[in-house]
Amino acid sequence: MSIQATYDPDNIFAKIIRGEMPCVKLYEDENVLAFMDVFPQSEGHCLVVHKKAKATNLFDIGADDLNALTIVMQKIGQAVADGLSPDGIRIAQFNGEPAGQTVFHLHFHIIPVYERSKLGRHASGGPVDGAILEPVAEKIRVKL
Amino acid sequence: MSIQATYDPDNIFAKIIRGEMPCVKLYEDENVLAFMDVFPQSEGHCLVVHKKAKATNLFDIGADDLNALTIVMQKIGQAVADGLSPDGIRIAQFNGEPAGQTVFHLHFHIIPVYERSKLGRHASGGPVDGAILEPVAEKIRVKL
Repeated sequence: MSIQATYDPDNIFAKIIRGEMPCVKLYEDENVLAFMDVFPQSEGHCLVVHKKAKATNLFDIGADDLNALTIVMQKIGQAVADGLSPDGIRIAQFNGEPAGQTVFHLHFHIIPVYERSKLGRHASGGPVDGAILEPVAEKIRVKL
Repeated sequence: MSIQATYDPDNIFAKIIRGEMPCVKLYEDENVLAFMDVFPQSEGHCLVVHKKAKATNLFDIGADDLNALTIVMQKIGQAVADGLSPDGIRIAQFNGEPAGQTVFHLHFHIIPVYERSKLGRHASGGPVDGAILEPVAEKIRVKL
């Protein structure tokens, strides 16, 4: 299959996981990290990644690691729902650049949808400053 | 949270699971069913649902059932990749009508992306006939 890409240990999420790049963190346990997307499509857009599995995409991760990831995805999604009261939540996961993948470390997007505003295009502008993301993150964290 | 909807046991996926409505089936085990989306956004667009969990959305299902669902999602996604050789695969899961959910039985979309063609809008036309979906489904099934 043509989607597979080689895992690059210097991708930006790997750097975030290693603490070499900053992130606005929502949650972390032994295996999984959740943090705010710096190119949010809506207020509260966040990401969930596995910290140990060197998985480029969905087809590249073992069952236990995938389960750890999706259970945290559910937990964070619930906290987004409780903390930000969006009208809906989209879960998205892209495999391969033509599907919209930009970082080749498996990640799930949690994207709140608000009836009052259309979703933005991902990465259409510059990154959003951590100081702007932090108060949104805090509304999510308190519901965890 | 405002996303939660009451589970309607007569939603169309519940009917498919009970065999009261037809589907072009890809895979079935004790807990999970995968079948072709009759409103495909691209060739090979398919859905994965839990057969027993009466879950309206992602926030409504237990850990074991969610894990069963996502492991089959991964398996079917791999077969879609192997059988249809798309350039990418999107996984999508919508919670709440404003997020794009139209059937209120938790489901994951597996949407192949082809560089040669843009994704269609979901449910923009009428349903696609089973006779058209069947040969596509067969290309996926042989890779399972």
